[in-house]
Amino acid sequence: MNYPKGTKKEEKNSYIRFDNRGMGLEEDINITNQYYIDNNKAFIYKKPTPIQVTKVDYKNNSIIIKEAFFKEPSTTDYNGLYDGLYIDFEAKETTSKTSFPLNNIHKHQITHIRNVINNGGIGFLIVRFTSLDKTYILMGNDFIYYIDNNDRKSIPLEYFESNGYLLEISYMPRLDYLKIIDQIIGGKNG
Amino acid sequence: MNYPKGTKKEEKNSYIRFDNRGMGLEEDINITNQYYIDNNKAFIYKKPTPIQVTKVDYKNNSIIIKEAFFKEPSTTDYNGLYDGLYIDFEAKETTSKTSFPLNNIHKHQITHIRNVINNGGIGFLIVRFTSLDKTYILMGNDFIYYIDNNDRKSIPLEYFESNGYLLEISYMPRLDYLKIIDQIIGGKNG
Repeated sequence: MNYPKGTKKEEKNSYIRFDNRGMGLEEDINITNQYYIDNNKAFIYKKPTPIQVTKVDYKNNSIIIKEAFFKEPSTTDYNGLYDGLYIDFEAKETTSKTSFPLNNIHKHQITHIRNVINNGGIGFLIVRFTSLDKTYILMGNDFIYYIDNNDRKSIPLEYFESNGYLLEISYMPRLDYLKIIDQIIGGKNG
Repeated sequence: MNYPKGTKKEEKNSYIRFDNRGMGLEEDINITNQYYIDNNKAFIYKKPTPIQVTKVDYKNNSIIIKEAFFKEPSTTDYNGLYDGLYIDFEAKETTSKTSFPLNNIHKHQITHIRNVINNGGIGFLIVRFTSLDKTYILMGNDFIYYIDNNDRKSIPLEYFESNGYLLEISYMPRLDYLKIIDQIIGGKNG
């Protein structure tokens, strides 16, 4: 809404999107994070996609990459600082109407989420079921509990409904996930 | 020591280094961070260099980047979690024997360090004077204090000697910066 369609399109065309699958949610989160930064509330950033550069060219004092490859990330995509807390999460979309496929999350990322929650950080997933237009926060401990106690290759929607927290789209900030985190942490501590 | 010369060289040749300037210190920190991870002490990672991809090719189901450009980072290079604390720092080398040139640190990064220390995170610089073979930690508040109270375009070595903390190379972990952070935080809290 605060981004007129024309501007948005221009931005999108300015470079190639190779990860279109996750763009809707990713964009919502990036806009939200920018809102948090502008309002001095939290400093959470998306990590750049890791790229292995194998060939470069030099032209007028600047470097052009001529060959490179995407690498698998060793951690989650987002992390940062919120009011003294270490925040760390992964955001994923699925078109499934019934479950979230676990091949969406790499093994390294699961280990990383485990490390985060075992060491005093706030780790979680944000999962959007695009066909249902529903977005959930699933806290790291509930995610790890499921992984450790199930052999299924996906997490059923019901698990999100019972253990997750529904995340509504609003005007500003667009996807106020820290409000939910506040409630969860407040609820757990007090 | 634990990296025989041959191995090191091989690793270095496996992809193009475009940022040779900072490699010694960067490698020391990466080895140290890996040690912390392996020993379940801290989960601090170097953020990938941000790259803008403008041309890709598809070959046998894999994507090859054919044109891309390095972008300026909006935050510091390293961040993560240590015992419930948000850790955030930038690492830089200088060949100068007398001062650390401030054009080494982007404006965005200074703002980011300011935000980190104002919001309950532990922010700092690790600066190596390569010609002197001396590495210092300069805490975020001392760095910002200097920036806010001086018009000079560099921070003199004496400022590091008086306000920083000398960081010695050791066997394992190679550059135990968290030991110093422990001392500083302990000293401030107790």
